[in-house]
Amino acid sequence: MANLAIDSASQDLLFREAHSAHRFTDEPVSDEAVKAIYDLIKYAPTSMNMQALRVVLIRSDDARERLVRQMIDTNKEKTSSAPLVAIIAADLDFHDEMPRLFPHFPQAKDIFFAKRDDRVPHAVSSATLQLGYFIVGVRAAGLGAGPMAGFDVDGVNKEFFDDGKHHAICVMVIGNPAEDAYHPRLPRLEYDEVFTTV
Amino acid sequence: MANLAIDSASQDLLFREAHSAHRFTDEPVSDEAVKAIYDLIKYAPTSMNMQALRVVLIRSDDARERLVRQMIDTNKEKTSSAPLVAIIAADLDFHDEMPRLFPHFPQAKDIFFAKRDDRVPHAVSSATLQLGYFIVGVRAAGLGAGPMAGFDVDGVNKEFFDDGKHHAICVMVIGNPAEDAYHPRLPRLEYDEVFTTV
Repeated sequence: MANLAIDSASQDLLFREAHSAHRFTDEPVSDEAVKAIYDLIKYAPTSMNMQALRVVLIRSDDARERLVRQMIDTNKEKTSSAPLVAIIAADLDFHDEMPRLFPHFPQAKDIFFAKRDDRVPHAVSSATLQLGYFIVGVRAAGLGAGPMAGFDVDGVNKEFFDDGKHHAICVMVIGNPAEDAYHPRLPRLEYDEVFTTV
Repeated sequence: MANLAIDSASQDLLFREAHSAHRFTDEPVSDEAVKAIYDLIKYAPTSMNMQALRVVLIRSDDARERLVRQMIDTNKEKTSSAPLVAIIAADLDFHDEMPRLFPHFPQAKDIFFAKRDDRVPHAVSSATLQLGYFIVGVRAAGLGAGPMAGFDVDGVNKEFFDDGKHHAICVMVIGNPAEDAYHPRLPRLEYDEVFTTV
């Protein structure tokens, strides 16, 4: 594509040939791989540099079992068997870090975000934006990502965030895609259905 | 970084060397460039393939003036002068397309999304995720993106979406970054502040 600056191999790996992955090989996903992903995608922007994304890596059998119980039936098997499962969450107290993360306007913490109800939509928005970056980052590491919204959100929040200060937005399976990892591509909207000009 | 599969030039262009851009050269951004960006990022996943992202490209002087009036003061100048400005919005009636976009479960349209109040958070979440992909896509085209949350959301919705069926989530300036395009990089959270293991 003449109007793009990244090479076609990267275009394919990140977008064109990438699919949400549902089956994986047995190869583990190391903490080093996850660190490399974060070290790449942490630079992408968030509103007022909020960075509300928080991630829980499920490494123990006990945590895996507790998470599987919260998934809808069609998501249980892959959540049980994937090399790595992560809970993607929003930190509802992200504002505590703002004096450090947004140092030219530290008052934002108290002016805009003193009330929890005011913070929640911003926390979810920031973490959701970063979820997009994270999916791209998993692919940039040559791995497959299977983001899932089909789980009991209140159940996951209660089970994994008993401080009441986090909100789960996604559960993601991560690993090396198996040969039968993908469902057929679903339709995408045409450019003219998404873009208008005024 | 040994654990990544994309080349360092792509890592730099998309993430490491990329910044939100605030000043641009006069070079225009063609519709062809925008189409190339969408043709890349349209493949990235959304929950239940919702694809609630909608984009309004501001090409006329009149529309530009109407938008500038809705921006907070610190965002007015760049919104006035950038080669291209886009309103990134969520289609609150995204469910109308689900029988086509999610054909193996067309009933989702009526079972989950019949009520507007139930649709709004899903529409905003889907469009926000796609905003993340779009920012990466603008960079993949070798352009700079300046996403802004500082505007009167109700004002933009009223001015540009008088059908009441869309919700603006971001205004973005797009162009070729000028030499003084960037502010200094703000701090990023460390890996151990974002990731926990259970």
